[in-house]
Amino acid sequence: MKKHCVIVVVALLADLVLAPVSVFAGGVSEAPMSVEKTAVKSEIKNVIMLIPDGMSMDGVTLARWFQGGMPLALDPLASGLVRTYNADTLIADSAPAATAFATGYKTNSPYIGVLPSKAGLWGVPEVTVPFRPVASVLEAARLSGRSVGLVATCELPHATPADFSAHAPNRKNYDDILEQQVYNSLSVVFSGGYKFLDSANRKDKEDLAAELVKQGYRLIKTKQEFDALKETGVEKVWGLFAPVDLAYDIDRDPAAEPSLAEMTSKAIALLSQNPHGFFLMVEGSKIDWAAHANEPVALVHDILAFDKAVEAAVKFASSRNDTVVIISSDHGNSGITMGNQSTSSGYDKVPLDTFIKPLQAARKSGSVFASLLDESKSNVQNVLASVYGIQDASAEEIEQIKTAKIDEWTGMTLVGQLIAKRAKIGFTTGGHTGEDVVLYQYAPLGAKKLSGTVQNNDIAWYMAELMGLDLKGTTQRLFADAKELFAGVSAVLETNMTDPANPVLVVKANGKELLLPVNKNYGMLNGTPVQLDGVTVYINETKSWYVSSRALDVIK
Amino acid sequence: MKKHCVIVVVALLADLVLAPVSVFAGGVSEAPMSVEKTAVKSEIKNVIMLIPDGMSMDGVTLARWFQGGMPLALDPLASGLVRTYNADTLIADSAPAATAFATGYKTNSPYIGVLPSKAGLWGVPEVTVPFRPVASVLEAARLSGRSVGLVATCELPHATPADFSAHAPNRKNYDDILEQQVYNSLSVVFSGGYKFLDSANRKDKEDLAAELVKQGYRLIKTKQEFDALKETGVEKVWGLFAPVDLAYDIDRDPAAEPSLAEMTSKAIALLSQNPHGFFLMVEGSKIDWAAHANEPVALVHDILAFDKAVEAAVKFASSRNDTVVIISSDHGNSGITMGNQSTSSGYDKVPLDTFIKPLQAARKSGSVFASLLDESKSNVQNVLASVYGIQDASAEEIEQIKTAKIDEWTGMTLVGQLIAKRAKIGFTTGGHTGEDVVLYQYAPLGAKKLSGTVQNNDIAWYMAELMGLDLKGTTQRLFADAKELFAGVSAVLETNMTDPANPVLVVKANGKELLLPVNKNYGMLNGTPVQLDGVTVYINETKSWYVSSRALDVIK
Repeated sequence: MKKHCVIVVVALLADLVLAPVSVFAGGVSEAPMSVEKTAVKSEIKNVIMLIPDGMSMDGVTLARWFQGGMPLALDPLASGLVRTYNADTLIADSAPAATAFATGYKTNSPYIGVLPSKAGLWGVPEVTVPFRPVASVLEAARLSGRSVGLVATCELPHATPADFSAHAPNRKNYDDILEQQVYNSLSVVFSGGYKFLDSANRKDKEDLAAELVKQGYRLIKTKQEFDALKETGVEKVWGLFAPVDLAYDIDRDPAAEPSLAEMTSKAIALLSQNPHGFFLMVEGSKIDWAAHANEPVALVHDILAFDKAVEAAVKFASSRNDTVVIISSDHGNSGITMGNQSTSSGYDKVPLDTFIKPLQAARKSGSVFASLLDESKSNVQNVLASVYGIQDASAEEIEQIKTAKIDEWTGMTLVGQLIAKRAKIGFTTGGHTGEDVVLYQYAPLGAKKLSGTVQNNDIAWYMAELMGLDLKGTTQRLFADAKELFAGVSAVLETNMTDPANPVLVVKANGKELLLPVNKNYGMLNGTPVQLDGVTVYINETKSWYVSSRALDVIK
Repeated sequence: MKKHCVIVVVALLADLVLAPVSVFAGGVSEAPMSVEKTAVKSEIKNVIMLIPDGMSMDGVTLARWFQGGMPLALDPLASGLVRTYNADTLIADSAPAATAFATGYKTNSPYIGVLPSKAGLWGVPEVTVPFRPVASVLEAARLSGRSVGLVATCELPHATPADFSAHAPNRKNYDDILEQQVYNSLSVVFSGGYKFLDSANRKDKEDLAAELVKQGYRLIKTKQEFDALKETGVEKVWGLFAPVDLAYDIDRDPAAEPSLAEMTSKAIALLSQNPHGFFLMVEGSKIDWAAHANEPVALVHDILAFDKAVEAAVKFASSRNDTVVIISSDHGNSGITMGNQSTSSGYDKVPLDTFIKPLQAARKSGSVFASLLDESKSNVQNVLASVYGIQDASAEEIEQIKTAKIDEWTGMTLVGQLIAKRAKIGFTTGGHTGEDVVLYQYAPLGAKKLSGTVQNNDIAWYMAELMGLDLKGTTQRLFADAKELFAGVSAVLETNMTDPANPVLVVKANGKELLLPVNKNYGMLNGTPVQLDGVTVYINETKSWYVSSRALDVIK
């Protein structure tokens, strides 16, 4: 592509030199300018960001070898590196890292979509307004008339999807986060987590499932309903296919849960009905979980499932000229390597099969190990052999399992240990790691691409630029500081905490009373509902309210 | 850059549409074609390949933080990934990996510049002629009239520089490798290894130092001589600044040894005197050695020293339009991560200083630890505190050191362990690892660039294309199979093993006798020396001779 560009650049210069000045004077000065408008503004209608949570580069290499060594869908897209650090610490967590992707600001762990209260690392601006909500690319895309969607294999209020669709000082505030997601005008949601919609599981006892139906969403839970979803006509759908997270891909029952690629394809089909375009975030959420457990089987299968989602996204994008696909992990995890202490010498002689066969022999992830054992664990050896392909478990290994309390998590770590040891796979930690991650991109000819080593928060500004979005303006529009917003009308503000799970901002001005309930996208003006264009956010840490600036128009 | 390209492409189309046909008809059809010739052939005069041996991505991130977090010279150049595997096994070694970079063929460990005898992994062609020497980009560049150079911090016959300048079935064949290097018409060499030139250290007792002088080389050993080297006028120089390898950068005495960046800059200055251009390979050799020892201090300092060499190369390249710089590690090593078992939880709260201060406190690498201890090791605590900044060594740690045999290697591993533990840095292995490595590139506008995930051997073909070199043709020209070459003249071939360290191919044909001594670039025709354009290679494994095809002209 570059090659052709250059040819023409020089050709144009040649024309300039050769051609009569009078003919060119106008043409040359005007053509580039009028072209600039369309070419530089690059009318990118659709942006799809895919996030393989906690995916280290080594896992990708291993997954590629797992299936024989042929290139993955990801491979041709590698184009640079991404720095993942938080505003204040070197090793990222999903909450601050995907906040950076979504909003353009590095923040602290465990914040969701709000500014940091601590800075200090290189390139991070000083703290201005701690915990201030900042608009996400998803929110700005929605205001531009695009449809917006979220796909993930975790529960919806989990950190990464939350970062694109909610604002909270703590990733654990599932009640707040999910309520904001319900009221944030998402067009398509496919993930896990229906348990959290249930009023019984919420402090405020609100029935969010009923609310979604009231808003006109199709709310589905089964693979049958997913398959029956027509790809035209349906505009608003929430599909939550498990009470909490979806299964690891290797454990997934295809009759019960769609794959990440299937959810991605269907989300794209539904969202792309909008002639104004769409923004979609897709997370391969549990790559991270498998890495935490140092369980290489679930890890490799979830990376390959993610790669198929990438393939689906690129298939759509490469069939047209208006779609950019960008992929970046949020941080490394586990320090996985092909090679461990047993290969400190002789590494270059180890056959491929040594690394791969023990993984290929496993038919389930370690997370189901507990469910396969009988009460007395008399069948340990049988399960190890028939399900995990481990024929040579030592007496010591069996003993370790028999004396351990096996649950979903310890099943992962124990089975992971047994298989990793046999596959000569090393891990340095059960936590995240600080290295850069790989930037992958597909962009049509003429669209701006990132390259080199970028910051995680650069990606938000890049996506905003592609779609012609004004992130800062959107923050002002959706999350105005109530004290500042209503100052001009001499309003009296009060926080009503009668129901502590549902604080309400009471605004009194011009003889009117406007109630703004937390996490919802509407107000009550003298008892009558008024629609807003974003959710109301209350930050308890600073006792601050952030509200749509439309609320001012309402009470003026 | 892309942005501008697009603007102009479309601008040209706009011009085509808007402007009078008669004026444009000639200009448009001719200009692109005449331009294409120069732009597509991309007259790249100079290629500089820099290889940070055994550098994993995590080490780069750590090195960046070590100096505060500002971008490295490498950072803006990240542009893709490189697959590092051997023809037959997943985890690379330097010998096969840099053979791939140099020649365009993946091979086996421990081969240097020859084809594999075992294949089997994805994308690797079946074995054709095992151990067949294949021409390197350096050799082809030399035949194109370019000057060629090697810079490394290891001894010159070590694997990576060897791969570009020699051909042998085993990287340990230093005698053969160095002799080929002496006779391979290298213009500039800066590295370690003068010990190996000494006749006393060679089985064949040849005096290679005298040979270099005879060939007109300036042969230098000191920093003073290096500094005194004028950057114009000198065309042939070998600078070997240590008997074996040069010091780790942190231990380097600037009065005794030049830095990698200084050697790179001077090599570029000397080589760029050639109006036909140059090829230079620069290796940061001991990044790998520090990684093997899991010694993070030497590692970080050598990565930063390498980065400065990259800076020097890019400074030269970016001042002109005819130079491409390409950088790739040959393989991962050590599985280093920021984060270890102690950070499996709480990783996102660990301050930057925790990772960095213990490294910054060290003033020497672990390799000099042994030399600092008194005979009874009574000063262990003092040395740990004053040299390595370790004030809190436990009784157990002191005991471990006191009972260990401390030499250069164990000093590295022991000090490495102490510092890595304090810095919460993890390692999975003392060996190489199998992950992809990062591709870094600088290319002038209009030059072809690699992107996505490439094979290590793609890089050789890419460099050859840039410089307009015919690698396959060069292999035929420099390393013709003697049996095939001389078949047409019905020659009788004999291997004279009178001196087993110096086999000679005896060719009898047309009443003439041509002697072709191994590893040299000349023959003796009826007792008279005749110059050849490459070195003669004897492969003992297959009893095959590979010789310059000029030898046929000589005896015809």
